[in-house]
Amino acid sequence: MRGYDATMATSPIAVPADPAPLAALLEAARAELPGVRLLTDEVDRESYRRDETAYLDAGLPGAVALPGTTADVAGLLRLASRHGVAVVPRGAGTGLSGGAAGIEGALTIALTRMDRILEIDRANLCVVTQPGVINATLKAAAAAEGLFYAPDPASYETCSIGGNLGTNAGGLCCVKYGQTRDAVLGLEVVLADGTVIRTGGRNVKDVAGYSLTHLFVGSQGTLGIITEATLRLRPAPGPRSTLLAFFADLDAAGEAVAGMTAAGLVPVTLELLDRETIAAVEDWHHLGLDTTAEAMLMVESDAPGAGAADEITRAEAACIAAGSHAVVRAADPQEADWLRQARRLALRALERQGTVRLEDVGVPRAAVPALLRAIARIAAAHGVRCATFGHAGDGNLHPNLIFAPDDPAAAELTHRVRDEIFRAALDLGGTVTAEHGIGAARREWLPIQRGDAAVAVMRSIKAALDPLGILNPGRVL
Amino acid sequence: MRGYDATMATSPIAVPADPAPLAALLEAARAELPGVRLLTDEVDRESYRRDETAYLDAGLPGAVALPGTTADVAGLLRLASRHGVAVVPRGAGTGLSGGAAGIEGALTIALTRMDRILEIDRANLCVVTQPGVINATLKAAAAAEGLFYAPDPASYETCSIGGNLGTNAGGLCCVKYGQTRDAVLGLEVVLADGTVIRTGGRNVKDVAGYSLTHLFVGSQGTLGIITEATLRLRPAPGPRSTLLAFFADLDAAGEAVAGMTAAGLVPVTLELLDRETIAAVEDWHHLGLDTTAEAMLMVESDAPGAGAADEITRAEAACIAAGSHAVVRAADPQEADWLRQARRLALRALERQGTVRLEDVGVPRAAVPALLRAIARIAAAHGVRCATFGHAGDGNLHPNLIFAPDDPAAAELTHRVRDEIFRAALDLGGTVTAEHGIGAARREWLPIQRGDAAVAVMRSIKAALDPLGILNPGRVL
Repeated sequence: MRGYDATMATSPIAVPADPAPLAALLEAARAELPGVRLLTDEVDRESYRRDETAYLDAGLPGAVALPGTTADVAGLLRLASRHGVAVVPRGAGTGLSGGAAGIEGALTIALTRMDRILEIDRANLCVVTQPGVINATLKAAAAAEGLFYAPDPASYETCSIGGNLGTNAGGLCCVKYGQTRDAVLGLEVVLADGTVIRTGGRNVKDVAGYSLTHLFVGSQGTLGIITEATLRLRPAPGPRSTLLAFFADLDAAGEAVAGMTAAGLVPVTLELLDRETIAAVEDWHHLGLDTTAEAMLMVESDAPGAGAADEITRAEAACIAAGSHAVVRAADPQEADWLRQARRLALRALERQGTVRLEDVGVPRAAVPALLRAIARIAAAHGVRCATFGHAGDGNLHPNLIFAPDDPAAAELTHRVRDEIFRAALDLGGTVTAEHGIGAARREWLPIQRGDAAVAVMRSIKAALDPLGILNPGRVL
Repeated sequence: MRGYDATMATSPIAVPADPAPLAALLEAARAELPGVRLLTDEVDRESYRRDETAYLDAGLPGAVALPGTTADVAGLLRLASRHGVAVVPRGAGTGLSGGAAGIEGALTIALTRMDRILEIDRANLCVVTQPGVINATLKAAAAAEGLFYAPDPASYETCSIGGNLGTNAGGLCCVKYGQTRDAVLGLEVVLADGTVIRTGGRNVKDVAGYSLTHLFVGSQGTLGIITEATLRLRPAPGPRSTLLAFFADLDAAGEAVAGMTAAGLVPVTLELLDRETIAAVEDWHHLGLDTTAEAMLMVESDAPGAGAADEITRAEAACIAAGSHAVVRAADPQEADWLRQARRLALRALERQGTVRLEDVGVPRAAVPALLRAIARIAAAHGVRCATFGHAGDGNLHPNLIFAPDDPAAAELTHRVRDEIFRAALDLGGTVTAEHGIGAARREWLPIQRGDAAVAVMRSIKAALDPLGILNPGRVL
């Protein structure tokens, strides 16, 4: 690779890379790939500089390519290999790890034009889709057939399937249905040299060879570019029953989660909001939430028939047994939708209060109360305001550090508090990222969490699949 | 690698490998690894020659090592790397793809002594186990805590967790709970050079780096040796409701499966037995099955509370709508256990009728009737008796070719019929192995199914992780 090194993604680029290789690529692309839209004006490129990882420096792409077909992507990667140009694969740009942020002078390939749902196969409960399809669009298309596409990131109305695949995106119903990887049956992937391969297919069981499907999902564009995916659908579940439970302390909420686990409940949603988050949501939406509570759980069931109401009754019992002082059921599906939407918009609610730095730690689920206490202690020690919400049923919490927009200490404080929270999560057997990804934002923590030897294995796989190092260099590894 | 090549595993070895490297390894192991049991007598080694893949030539191991600890395994692989000795990792030897069969003159490392369950973590719904634990032992230990370990190969009473991980083993309840890979949260793996790494952990969501966990599972010992696993448990489901439905033709049974899918049912078991298999089971167990039927479905539900009976009622309706002429519910849990056990022993029932050659094809589930027809047509064209049973809900069928024990044409016919069945499965978008593995038995079909470019990616990963090619050479790739 000419002109790129692994530090680029995380540090401001003082000296732009040699522009000659990219210029040569663009010239060849104009001649050989007429279907590819190329953006080279600075104003256009600027809008591809960042994803939604606001606190991360990002480079200005040297150019942006918008392919329309798999052959276009293959052609672009052949040229990138030939000319030694780094490539940043990008979906809708809603990522929270800097995985799709620009690299100064590199080529961003945005998959947004490849936005067709190719087939919904009702008989085999799967959908074949291009990567540029918006998650909500896929959900709606499945729903129109009486089917359900489960993966459900909070950003589902704007994020794309390709980005979901790249990050192995999570969301609100992982606790029952798993993450994006669990929904993938097969992929079409363009490798670094432009070779197109297929992995998996429409078989729900298939052990022929290594599971490349699982490897590509979550690799954030560092091993190949996903140009098509076959995703698992489910029969549409019935309407959800929804419960809110309020607790005077965090441990009681943690006990309620443990009680539901012990009772064998499998809720589709098991979310926790702390006092700060409850207040921010209430301040915006006026739902009548108990703003004196230290924690609120939101529990939903989509069990079939009478099962949903029954499961929520048992969840209510677990909450009361753990000391909940107020439990409320949604009066009807519309109210439930509204509560769920309010939870989804928790981040936006917090952003009304200042500049928010969102994190994404996870722990074994029994350690959620300990992690909540550690987060509160660390934030207090640094005098930083922190609101935490997240997927309690998965052990996945999102601490949000809130600053005044012009706070000059914010950047440094964020970094210090974040590192202490990461350390606390790892000390509890957890992870520095449960669903957002290592991307560019958490790279230095990967060897700390996984160990040098495991990261060396990842590097050897990266080197095997991308020997020139052109695919999203400096991300993940 | 000295003295080994990729053809070894599938062909009788005329010229044994150079014995000097193995002799040097054994000498060093005796001195440096006192905890390792070494078997060198021919009679001992002979019992490690084969797994349960009866129709495959297998080599006589030059020695067998039985390590007691991860450090022992690491020491053995360090020595194997140093001396260039090929290694065959082996569990209980129940595999059906020749993945753990001996390689002439190589070192078989059997993990059977590493048979301790290290911890059942109720609060985090997981178990930490060594690989030598028998699947049924793990199930029983989980059940004693009110929990459930789902993966459920038909051989569960004799197969080991390590082998299940190596092959990504399936079984009877995949249709609801997935394969072995879906139950794995983390691994400890010894790499080819003896380095020990950990992947994953107890977090249900964790996107830090590439998912090495998913890659090692199903790699049949060609990328590393799994020495510990953290596996997902579930709250124990309630007692099962069980239904048998008989059909006068295969298509009607296929329609019943499609009808259940369309109705949104999620049975825990959805098995199909064809006429030959029904007859063999009935002949052995005298259950009163309808031996005039062309197909029987066995449907089970473990939905909570009244849900199980409700789901079975809906399954019954789907079967009747598709034309089932006889539906029978198990009278009580004991009868249901007996029926399930009879299904599990279908292979043994067939083996009472002759020498059985078991295959393992899969198709997208809607193609099950087409695959059944193709299997029957191919068998008839070659005048071969064939009994088919399998996991209809997953699209996974096991055609069994039955020969007289002394039939001199069996080997050649098996090969020809098998290849035609594989081709038929692939023509339907299927796989040559849904749950048994490529191993040594199906290697030549891997590039046909996956394509040369995808197999080249697998080979590059193999070369990156095992540059000397000592780990189970000639298996999978």
